[in-house]
Amino acid sequence: MVFPELHLFGSAADRGETAPEPVTGEERNATLRASARPLDGPLSDALGALAREAGVWLVPGSVCELGPEGELFNTALVYAPTGERVASYRKMFPWRPFEPYDPGDRFVVFDMPGVGRLGLSICYDAWFPEVTRHLAWLGAEVVLNLVKTTTDDRAQELVLARANSIVNQVFTVSVNCAGPAGRGRSIIVDPEGLVLAESAGAHAETLVTTLDLEHVTLVRDHGTAGTNRPWAQFADTDAALALPLYGGRISPSRGGPWPALPLLPIPRPIPQHPSPSKDDDPWPLPRSPVPPSLAP
Amino acid sequence: MVFPELHLFGSAADRGETAPEPVTGEERNATLRASARPLDGPLSDALGALAREAGVWLVPGSVCELGPEGELFNTALVYAPTGERVASYRKMFPWRPFEPYDPGDRFVVFDMPGVGRLGLSICYDAWFPEVTRHLAWLGAEVVLNLVKTTTDDRAQELVLARANSIVNQVFTVSVNCAGPAGRGRSIIVDPEGLVLAESAGAHAETLVTTLDLEHVTLVRDHGTAGTNRPWAQFADTDAALALPLYGGRISPSRGGPWPALPLLPIPRPIPQHPSPSKDDDPWPLPRSPVPPSLAP
Repeated sequence: MVFPELHLFGSAADRGETAPEPVTGEERNATLRASARPLDGPLSDALGALAREAGVWLVPGSVCELGPEGELFNTALVYAPTGERVASYRKMFPWRPFEPYDPGDRFVVFDMPGVGRLGLSICYDAWFPEVTRHLAWLGAEVVLNLVKTTTDDRAQELVLARANSIVNQVFTVSVNCAGPAGRGRSIIVDPEGLVLAESAGAHAETLVTTLDLEHVTLVRDHGTAGTNRPWAQFADTDAALALPLYGGRISPSRGGPWPALPLLPIPRPIPQHPSPSKDDDPWPLPRSPVPPSLAP
Repeated sequence: MVFPELHLFGSAADRGETAPEPVTGEERNATLRASARPLDGPLSDALGALAREAGVWLVPGSVCELGPEGELFNTALVYAPTGERVASYRKMFPWRPFEPYDPGDRFVVFDMPGVGRLGLSICYDAWFPEVTRHLAWLGAEVVLNLVKTTTDDRAQELVLARANSIVNQVFTVSVNCAGPAGRGRSIIVDPEGLVLAESAGAHAETLVTTLDLEHVTLVRDHGTAGTNRPWAQFADTDAALALPLYGGRISPSRGGPWPALPLLPIPRPIPQHPSPSKDDDPWPLPRSPVPPSLAP
């Protein structure tokens, strides 16, 4: 079960109440900071107990985390059905300048044994394609994007949910909070960018979907729309592509971080639809774009 | 005037003819290679003369370029109304394994004096968000994406055109070739991801649009949907974010490649729509995300 960003740290407006709200940035900041707690403590214990009692994987949204150096993080939590907290992720791209959170410094994925690997992002992270790119590279087949969007830009986020899926060939589960504060319109997207489920508006709603994570492998083997395999773009004879904005590069050479095929037979004829069947493909891809040795 | 990828290197199918086509990858490769020419020569001279005679900025699609070391590049060309070739860009992400082109190794932007800066990408480049990200960082306000998509994935590309605009706050002009070979559906998108013009199908069509490049500045100042200013995300006191896929990082510190504000006053109250007017904004952004010293 996946809940939206800061689900347990809502405001009176979230609850439809008319109680006085903190209205200035300073007041809101003070409220958030006062509610922040270290990662380990009664709240996390209670959430773990809830997951265990219900026997479910639980992502209870994100919480205000008081960091070890007094930081204020916006942190997503994941609990296994055993009650164990198996992952936490600190939002790397706080929605500035409106939010006071300190940014996290690392990408987080986690495994559901026997199911697959999932990655975590929070709200505005989705506006920075670097995030989902890295989660997919770390092996995520599903990206959970926990959202609290209360403004008009939910329209753009629906486009970004699809695009982040398309360029990385992953599922995206973008869960926004409902009204009256939130704009709703949660969306679940498949690895080719097709919309599997979407809440129609801002009313509270539960989307129930079965995701077949084998579909990630299928799309990466056959290609999006039967053709495109971006994770198989490079041959290990390719030169590195310099990315000066990052002071980095895409290094497809063997041992580099971007997966490279030992040989890339080109050219192939442009396919005529219907797509070639897998049995016709003499150049199968590895099942995962990430060599296991690179997984965290 | 902007024409699609390989507009002058079409096949009999492009022309609706039923003449025998090269059908194997090797035959197609041989045809493309035989048609390739060095960048400077009669073809380029003729295109420059055409731009001069018509008195227009001309992007005649891309051509098969025979590189100095015998490479085969897919290269976009730009001519000023003087007839001068002001830019050429070699596709960095050939559509592998179907295309035989050697990949280019650098991002290209060019200036239209008195108008603004434009960036060049070709077809499958749009599937790699690193490309448009870099073009915007280099100061492009408009990205011209020259396309020859003959397969079902034009549907995904329409999403990507909008997403590449949204995350970078640039115009995208994605010009696909028409039928019978191409799928058409060219699209022009504004810096907030709104669709300004789109051809309805695969028939040959000319989209005529006026782009107000000041709108890029406006959106970056006021924020997408009145709120989001991704190019103003970082304060120069922020730590670098490691991007291990690229062996690089986002370095917002002063002097780093990602622009950083000297001070980022947070938190601000979450805005209530309508958006705050520019006059209310005590933290104006620089007009361009790129320090001039970083421009190529």
